[in-house]
Amino acid sequence: MNNLDKWLKNSVGEGKKIVSGNSPKRSFFKRRPHAKHPNHKKQAPHASKHPSLRIIPLGGLEEVGKNMTVFEYGRDIFILDMGFQFPEDDMLGVDYVIPDISYLEDKIDRIRGIFITHGHLDHTGGIPYFFPKLGNIPIFGTKLTMGLVRKRLEEFGYAKVAKLNTIDPDETLRLGCFTLNFFRVNHSIPDGVGVIIDTPQGKVVHTGDFKFDFTPADNKLADFSKIAALSGQNVIALMSDSTNALNPGHTVSEKSIGKTLDDIIKNTPGRIIIASFSSLIGRIQQIVSSAIKHQRPIYVSGRSMVDNIEIATKLGYLSYPKGTIRDIRKYKNHGDPNALILTTGSQGEAVSALTRMAAADHPHIKIKKNDTIVLSSSPIIGNEKAITATINNLCYLGANVISNNIMDVHTSGHGKKEDLKLMLSLVKPKNLIPVHGLLYMRKAHGQLGIEMGLKEENIIYADNGSVIEINNEKVKLKEEKVESKYVIVDGLGIGDTSATVIKERQEMAENGIAIVLFKADKTTKKLIKTPMLISRGFLYLKETDKIEKEIVTESKKAYEALLEKDPKASWDDLKKFVAGSIARNAHKQLDRRPLVLPIIVTG
Amino acid sequence: MNNLDKWLKNSVGEGKKIVSGNSPKRSFFKRRPHAKHPNHKKQAPHASKHPSLRIIPLGGLEEVGKNMTVFEYGRDIFILDMGFQFPEDDMLGVDYVIPDISYLEDKIDRIRGIFITHGHLDHTGGIPYFFPKLGNIPIFGTKLTMGLVRKRLEEFGYAKVAKLNTIDPDETLRLGCFTLNFFRVNHSIPDGVGVIIDTPQGKVVHTGDFKFDFTPADNKLADFSKIAALSGQNVIALMSDSTNALNPGHTVSEKSIGKTLDDIIKNTPGRIIIASFSSLIGRIQQIVSSAIKHQRPIYVSGRSMVDNIEIATKLGYLSYPKGTIRDIRKYKNHGDPNALILTTGSQGEAVSALTRMAAADHPHIKIKKNDTIVLSSSPIIGNEKAITATINNLCYLGANVISNNIMDVHTSGHGKKEDLKLMLSLVKPKNLIPVHGLLYMRKAHGQLGIEMGLKEENIIYADNGSVIEINNEKVKLKEEKVESKYVIVDGLGIGDTSATVIKERQEMAENGIAIVLFKADKTTKKLIKTPMLISRGFLYLKETDKIEKEIVTESKKAYEALLEKDPKASWDDLKKFVAGSIARNAHKQLDRRPLVLPIIVTG
Repeated sequence: MNNLDKWLKNSVGEGKKIVSGNSPKRSFFKRRPHAKHPNHKKQAPHASKHPSLRIIPLGGLEEVGKNMTVFEYGRDIFILDMGFQFPEDDMLGVDYVIPDISYLEDKIDRIRGIFITHGHLDHTGGIPYFFPKLGNIPIFGTKLTMGLVRKRLEEFGYAKVAKLNTIDPDETLRLGCFTLNFFRVNHSIPDGVGVIIDTPQGKVVHTGDFKFDFTPADNKLADFSKIAALSGQNVIALMSDSTNALNPGHTVSEKSIGKTLDDIIKNTPGRIIIASFSSLIGRIQQIVSSAIKHQRPIYVSGRSMVDNIEIATKLGYLSYPKGTIRDIRKYKNHGDPNALILTTGSQGEAVSALTRMAAADHPHIKIKKNDTIVLSSSPIIGNEKAITATINNLCYLGANVISNNIMDVHTSGHGKKEDLKLMLSLVKPKNLIPVHGLLYMRKAHGQLGIEMGLKEENIIYADNGSVIEINNEKVKLKEEKVESKYVIVDGLGIGDTSATVIKERQEMAENGIAIVLFKADKTTKKLIKTPMLISRGFLYLKETDKIEKEIVTESKKAYEALLEKDPKASWDDLKKFVAGSIARNAHKQLDRRPLVLPIIVTG
Repeated sequence: MNNLDKWLKNSVGEGKKIVSGNSPKRSFFKRRPHAKHPNHKKQAPHASKHPSLRIIPLGGLEEVGKNMTVFEYGRDIFILDMGFQFPEDDMLGVDYVIPDISYLEDKIDRIRGIFITHGHLDHTGGIPYFFPKLGNIPIFGTKLTMGLVRKRLEEFGYAKVAKLNTIDPDETLRLGCFTLNFFRVNHSIPDGVGVIIDTPQGKVVHTGDFKFDFTPADNKLADFSKIAALSGQNVIALMSDSTNALNPGHTVSEKSIGKTLDDIIKNTPGRIIIASFSSLIGRIQQIVSSAIKHQRPIYVSGRSMVDNIEIATKLGYLSYPKGTIRDIRKYKNHGDPNALILTTGSQGEAVSALTRMAAADHPHIKIKKNDTIVLSSSPIIGNEKAITATINNLCYLGANVISNNIMDVHTSGHGKKEDLKLMLSLVKPKNLIPVHGLLYMRKAHGQLGIEMGLKEENIIYADNGSVIEINNEKVKLKEEKVESKYVIVDGLGIGDTSATVIKERQEMAENGIAIVLFKADKTTKKLIKTPMLISRGFLYLKETDKIEKEIVTESKKAYEALLEKDPKASWDDLKKFVAGSIARNAHKQLDRRPLVLPIIVTG
């Protein structure tokens, strides 16, 4: 029995509710819509006569962030996750980076639905930016995930028109010819799931972000039985989270972190301020429970922390007696010396609550001697300097700072080597496609696969824009690539990094700008006045006069020299020529390379 | 017997050679010059009648880098170290940061000498920048340290005129009223020493950068006997390296790293490229010895690696059969498949050899499948992203990358908690002044002091520019502070961060520049032409036309509105007014804040 026949025979388990996505040909809640799919009408003994399954990661393979994967079979497409990424160091002034959806632009009517594995921004953050284009496509996810997506869409004014659908992990979701089943995983946010994707070309499993936690904060274990059952189901490819593939051992359990925090909350005299990620609902629950147990009033600071606690409470993911958690604005009047303050800013973000406290600039909290600050987090690569600056500032204010390198006050949401091996052992896939992370992380993951018996050719390293083709149980990386450039969000605009904008910012960031203003006769082009240098970010006060004169003199000379040599020189020729002279002069005299901008005014 | 009397009685040990620094009143090699010092003529029974010893750190306490400390007693001053620092993230376009020596500017004739503890740039890098001001002051240090300082000064053309003096750690150095003795320490560069400073107000010990390594690469142990003898000598204050004060345990021995590297060099098939710090001479010796043992030809790439190997070899700190180490330029012709290549670039520095190899842009090395690259280093805070980008690029080229989180291929040059405690145990100081590192690191160091029995008031946390006063065995932090701003080196110029230059660069880096050019009548000030917007780094192609028009229209309106309201408005008033309008417009329409620059031309 080939793979396609197996798939056609594959019936949905008893008692499962089935929900379906966009499809002009199918209505919601229809039991076996796949039998009616055009691709299945002509059944053939060999799968090779059928279209290939195409898996196209549009993001998440060349960065930690902007996860988004397209699954395509015949005329059916569904999208898994739609995240954004924070900009790289050299993307000056950029707010976010989102995946490039050029590939989808002429295929929008074929997209049957979007499934979101969990509520983190690197899996959801792109949604509002794509909404104007993909607006009427239904979005599916578990309860908390959809609550957070709804909140984001509200901020952009799209929540009312969006088709948001909450699914239970035990439901089956039908999106065109794709049948999706789910298994709970542990992660640093509740309600994360992995996805079992049944396709006419066989079964593909995507873990989403995951770890295995035997004692998770919410006591909800990963769905081991569902995952283990996969080992007998001929999984063609496992797409698995590689974020921690370089880290040995098992990821520490959330409850063990909770114990450490409970000790701190119990035994530390005075005020305690705990900074953590606002989506770490399990951590927040443990902190809140400890604070209640040890009779500390709880206050919350930081917009995302307030928002997420509100959503999680409303949806039943956080529980505490009503009125226990208070807004920080109420703190001023109380002044509880025993308070526990939950806040954002564990990454040293410029405008966050903790950073403002550290800069003695928070409207409600003035850090004082003997305050204890716990950074219940670990640095995201690139934030190290900002975090140490925050810690250092807190020290200056007299606070005692506990971070993860002092005590175990944080654990990752991603599985380490042993967790990844456990997943491979449970699923026993034919092929491993390491996802989520840069190549060097994915290679470390692939290495684990090889150690466990997979062959080199069964590990697939794709890039953003790669086309992974599955046909007749063979997984191949196609030569073709779809567009997958970095699309940037800058203020209210969307651009791309190929634009000269970023390059110009880099030049000006390095050595400023030197503008030389020429006034010339309209017809003879001869200079009417001595040129003027206007510069920004280029010259230090002390050096200004001498250098200014030199640059002006040299650019005047250059202008006149060219005009003499070639009286027909165009305005552009003249500008180009003097620009070269100014640049050479700045470099020779100061070893700096400002952006040079000659302006010629006639009159 | 009070401290001063003890000091006056203190005779120099037998067999020691004494060298002295600058002093118009004293000649070199005089035996007891301190007896003739003006401050000692009027001997008094109580030290309080004598000047205080003043210790003024000008750098190294609010950063990791630019270490420099001034010791001042009466009219005598000596300087310990003179480093630079790499710029912080927000110092755009800045090459280095150097200490602020304003305090010394009117005291240059009182500076008796400069002592350098070891040859790292955070202890030596400032020298060439201060040389024009401090040129004729003698500089002292051990052999390798002076070799490296000489090389730096050569690059600036100062080597011939500088007074460089090599001392042996067993010599005694007299600098004005200060008597300096030395003890060898272990560090990540050979020839590092700590300094015992005898002053009329007692003994102060400065560790320099240090760790204790019981099996160092060069087999030279720290001078335990000299250090331990200090415990009986009433050390008033210990100034001790805090870089690793947050890290538990002992720092791993260099030889243990050598063993791991030897295993790799022995057992890895194919080419091996090892990137490390060029000043890690002990590491380089171990790698070179292993390569010779396992018959791998050795090539060196990267300017600082080539330079340092040359200096260390010449001075006897590296040994290998002549001709064993070859320049990378010779590699091309050989093409040895078995080669070991030593290179710089372990921090992902933009122009370094390894970064160029990773970008497939190195003139001699093309990375290929099965090359093994070892990063024998650890990330300096802030370099994490650049390093992971380099590792990732190497992976794309097919290389196998071994970094310190995979195997123990690097150890720090700074002592961890247990090393710091050992130093405290050996010296038994009355007071601890944690130095080298930000406050949060120094507080961790102070905490160790308290655990070992020092009282809170005996731990002194100074800042850059603080004045630490020692008088009659009391150590006090004065209220006064001397100037200690960040002085920046940018190309060939020196400025300071208070300059608007950096702020302008930050603005332009974020959202570019919007220049609006107005042409107005000289006398009526009325606009002659429609204004023109010239922008750089501000607008993405797609949005240009519409936004440009809008900004031009609005700034024209603003100009004319002000002129109508106040026909006497000055050119400056007009510029300021339209600048405000342009800024508001850019923010409203694009949520961006470019640097706005209106230019009015008359004609």
